Amino acid sequence: MLTCTIPSQHRKLGEGGILESIKLPKPVPPLRLPRHANGFSVQVFWDSDVGKWIESASYALSHRRDADIEAKIEAIVDDFEKAQLPDGYLNCWYLEREPENRWTNLRDNHELYNAGHMLEGAIAYFETTGRRRWLDIMERYVDHIATVFGTGPGQKRGYCGHPEIELALVKLYQLTGNRKHLDLAAYFVNERGNQNPHYFDVERIEREKRGGEVQRYVFPNYEYSQSHKPVREQRKVVGHAVRAMYLYTAMADLAAELGDAALKEACEILWKDVMDTKMYVTAGLGPSAHNEGFTFDYDLPNQTAYAETCASVALIFWSQRMLHLDLDGKYADVLELALYNGALAGLSRDGEHYFYANPLESNGSAERWTWHTCPCCTMNVSRLVASVGGYFISTADDGVAFHLYGGISAKRAIAGTMVSLRETSNYPWSGDIKIEIDPDAPATFDVKLRIPAWAKSFALKLNGEPLNATPANGYVTINRLWSKGDKLSLDLPMPPERLYANPNVIMDTGRVALRRGPLVYCVEEADNPGGAVQRLKLPRTSELKMTTRADLFGGAVTLSAPARAIDPADWRDLYRTSPPREGEAELTALPYYLWANRTRASMVVWIPEA
Amino acid sequence: MLTCTIPSQHRKLGEGGILESIKLPKPVPPLRLPRHANGFSVQVFWDSDVGKWIESASYALSHRRDADIEAKIEAIVDDFEKAQLPDGYLNCWYLEREPENRWTNLRDNHELYNAGHMLEGAIAYFETTGRRRWLDIMERYVDHIATVFGTGPGQKRGYCGHPEIELALVKLYQLTGNRKHLDLAAYFVNERGNQNPHYFDVERIEREKRGGEVQRYVFPNYEYSQSHKPVREQRKVVGHAVRAMYLYTAMADLAAELGDAALKEACEILWKDVMDTKMYVTAGLGPSAHNEGFTFDYDLPNQTAYAETCASVALIFWSQRMLHLDLDGKYADVLELALYNGALAGLSRDGEHYFYANPLESNGSAERWTWHTCPCCTMNVSRLVASVGGYFISTADDGVAFHLYGGISAKRAIAGTMVSLRETSNYPWSGDIKIEIDPDAPATFDVKLRIPAWAKSFALKLNGEPLNATPANGYVTINRLWSKGDKLSLDLPMPPERLYANPNVIMDTGRVALRRGPLVYCVEEADNPGGAVQRLKLPRTSELKMTTRADLFGGAVTLSAPARAIDPADWRDLYRTSPPREGEAELTALPYYLWANRTRASMVVWIPEA
Repeated sequence: MLTCTIPSQHRKLGEGGILESIKLPKPVPPLRLPRHANGFSVQVFWDSDVGKWIESASYALSHRRDADIEAKIEAIVDDFEKAQLPDGYLNCWYLEREPENRWTNLRDNHELYNAGHMLEGAIAYFETTGRRRWLDIMERYVDHIATVFGTGPGQKRGYCGHPEIELALVKLYQLTGNRKHLDLAAYFVNERGNQNPHYFDVERIEREKRGGEVQRYVFPNYEYSQSHKPVREQRKVVGHAVRAMYLYTAMADLAAELGDAALKEACEILWKDVMDTKMYVTAGLGPSAHNEGFTFDYDLPNQTAYAETCASVALIFWSQRMLHLDLDGKYADVLELALYNGALAGLSRDGEHYFYANPLESNGSAERWTWHTCPCCTMNVSRLVASVGGYFISTADDGVAFHLYGGISAKRAIAGTMVSLRETSNYPWSGDIKIEIDPDAPATFDVKLRIPAWAKSFALKLNGEPLNATPANGYVTINRLWSKGDKLSLDLPMPPERLYANPNVIMDTGRVALRRGPLVYCVEEADNPGGAVQRLKLPRTSELKMTTRADLFGGAVTLSAPARAIDPADWRDLYRTSPPREGEAELTALPYYLWANRTRASMVVWIPEA
Repeated sequence: MLTCTIPSQHRKLGEGGILESIKLPKPVPPLRLPRHANGFSVQVFWDSDVGKWIESASYALSHRRDADIEAKIEAIVDDFEKAQLPDGYLNCWYLEREPENRWTNLRDNHELYNAGHMLEGAIAYFETTGRRRWLDIMERYVDHIATVFGTGPGQKRGYCGHPEIELALVKLYQLTGNRKHLDLAAYFVNERGNQNPHYFDVERIEREKRGGEVQRYVFPNYEYSQSHKPVREQRKVVGHAVRAMYLYTAMADLAAELGDAALKEACEILWKDVMDTKMYVTAGLGPSAHNEGFTFDYDLPNQTAYAETCASVALIFWSQRMLHLDLDGKYADVLELALYNGALAGLSRDGEHYFYANPLESNGSAERWTWHTCPCCTMNVSRLVASVGGYFISTADDGVAFHLYGGISAKRAIAGTMVSLRETSNYPWSGDIKIEIDPDAPATFDVKLRIPAWAKSFALKLNGEPLNATPANGYVTINRLWSKGDKLSLDLPMPPERLYANPNVIMDTGRVALRRGPLVYCVEEADNPGGAVQRLKLPRTSELKMTTRADLFGGAVTLSAPARAIDPADWRDLYRTSPPREGEAELTALPYYLWANRTRASMVVWIPEA
């Protein structure tokens, strides 16, 4: 991260003019070019990209400090400090172009969204470095926002078209303990979707009255921004996928902080809707590029899947918050699935190439890019990867829960003593997991180990002796007096498996996917030369063989099986009456998250069955 | 047509404000609302819809005159006559809103396209009624256009972003014999795609100089309008599908009129590109809604197929012109395929509902609509249906060729005598075809009968006696002295067939389509109750049975076969490790063009093979 992704992202922020965009005031104000049809210029969310880069860098710095990166952050903070108005307002797009129009188009122009990401960056930077300047700037901005928005006299009853500030404010509350930050988050969540009148109409009418530019809205529905109903009444997941996930994350946060049962129930209903009808097998979300989001139940096209990286990253946030509400393995299962598949697929092995959309099938035209006009995904995946350790375990007064495996060590206060925790494994390649529990003084507490839903069996040992334990809600609990040197071992066998989709997912009829442990596999042309991989058919009876490939991405486990291959050689026409010839072939599958790291070539997750 | 579709379209033109839009001048000029992102307001092409309605109505009137319809046309002509400027200019959108800006945005604003459709309407109306007023108006407009555009001093070297006027001008030339009309068509075709500079850049820079509204262009490439290269250098079919088909139609027209071998060769190369890599099995064209057009070779997604009705209608135009250049059955095969499948699917059985896009698979959400904000397809399919008789036969001095079958009678001059021609059949339901050749006086000439490529065999009889004949280029030729009462019979056996797609069409791997004669079939839920039809799998060995269904759309022939059905009943989750249960089922298929005429339900053309 610190040697590759973080510096390369900073370079790209510079090359793309984003770092320049926060240097205010400009000697010459920019031309007011017409906005995009969907109501915003790309630059309108650049502040957020800077905020997310600082957040990513700060997580990376928490592992190892780096003077050069820190100097780069300080330079950005200098710019933001200079740009901030005396009243606290700090949005570089409006400040540069039309300061008089601030807070006039919350629906489209991302002002509060930007503030949220800047705030998350400031919190992360403070937590890593202890430096308050950036956080102070953002607190002043939050104080300003709290004066503008709310239900008080003269306040705007607005909220952002793109949720984000809500969850950032909860983080700020968790840092400051200042109730006003939580109240502001709750205000934004609770105000969302109120009708009579709808705030986005109120502000639109205001703009039109002032004779301002009429901004057309390519998504003329409230669903796009999940503002079609008050959040507690929402029962179906709709609209822009990232907006939805950020909103639900904030809702779950608030449900936990406020003990709000209605909000929790809404989260649970929405969760079930995603899981039952709307999630790709890779934990990708949002089939449609049109609205970058959701369409209808079971609409999960493969080749045209949008499945934005940001949406899978945000699903991880939401899963974590749901897990926080209820220690139920079903949330950790999805967190893990999204992490190792839908989210990680967005970042290349070299750490400098990205996917914005993550299709489950490609004809070979998909290619990772080095940057994007809207670089949201780049810093979303880097802030996730840089902070991934934070998702592995959680502790409470009376115990610790291991949610993910793959190597973690931490020291935490549990049951009145400090406990060193160490988990070592070659997960996700192997399910052979060793855990050391080292309390400074003997103490009785729960150790909870997640047994993933994909694990058909497991074997648990305590200090070398088999231990019988029955998982409840996806976790086994070992409650005992723990002493220095206690060792647990957990074996999660990982045989390759076939997965089938609900027949309502019409795109996957007659197709099969492969999974091993938490990893969903794909068939990529690089491992299956001879033409498009869609020519391969996997007989249901073919045995799946595992191979650990030291030569491939540092030890990837591939799956292979005897298959049938359609022979395109004798085809001339587009259609013909005689069926294609088929021959014997070997099919090799690679974890999905590793695809598109070699040559540009065809790929398929859902393999036709022979 | 005259009792249903034509009057209902007139009513819709009225309800949609389109008939009102040509009543000029308006007492109060309309507000200048911002345009859509793609550079035009919907109304910009309303003139063309009026023109196409007149064309449709005129074809229908040629079968049976109707005073009410004719009065409606005359009222429209009154309006256009009033709106026309003294110099001949006649575009109601510009005249109403910004007459000073006429001819400043050919790329986006459809001015010449509108003129083309109005002109086609005027020609058809004149040919049916002999009334010249509307044609005179349009000839004055064409004369004006000829002064504005061309290579002479002071002329604009422009051409329309949406080809159409070119083919209309060739029709006008064929009517008037006036070479200037052909020359203007040739100018527009030849000017297209010239660079150094590109005309669309020239006019854009002019607009910007004048400080006009900067019109963004959602398709920032010349390919969208087939203006990326001079037309003779174009080798791949690109861009907006209808624009492409209209352009190629005009190119083939000009190649024939001018004996232009290079233009003919370009048409042939483009034809081969469509046929080898870009046409749906239904003769639908253009997979992508994004550009309403072409993407890349073999990209033929089913559920998201755009396959605009207009594009299949226009493919019929192009096929007809190619057939005119070379009497080769391959062109008539595609003409027939497009007619009975991709085009006809756009019109409902009740004659008042339409499809704009014609997907080859549906989850049940597709529904025919009664009108559209851009009603281009409605009148394109009606003008095709109303004029379909014109595609059945063609005559030359030395003979007659029968291209399509299905019932036609005509009297034509051949070999110096008038010949009555009558073809009777229940085609496309049956291939049992009877033809009567009745010359007023005995005469020697060719009778050419098309033997479709789908026909694996045929039997020909002359006056009851078997006749041996070998087809050449898709036609058998019978040259003899024909006398009154001569009868031919042609039997084209129509067994149901399976079709397979080239393995490069990755969406159709492991799938099979059904065809009988010229009709491509689909499996629709209305005939296959029990859930989404995508659950059905057709074993390769299942025998296909035909049934003539007097109860179904007046005698449709359905195909049925033993099949396997995936059982969704035991599914709860989105994904699971055990395969779906399968049971025995009967699969029933209906001609594709008849789909979506009953309840809204799932449909599939490419059936998974068991």
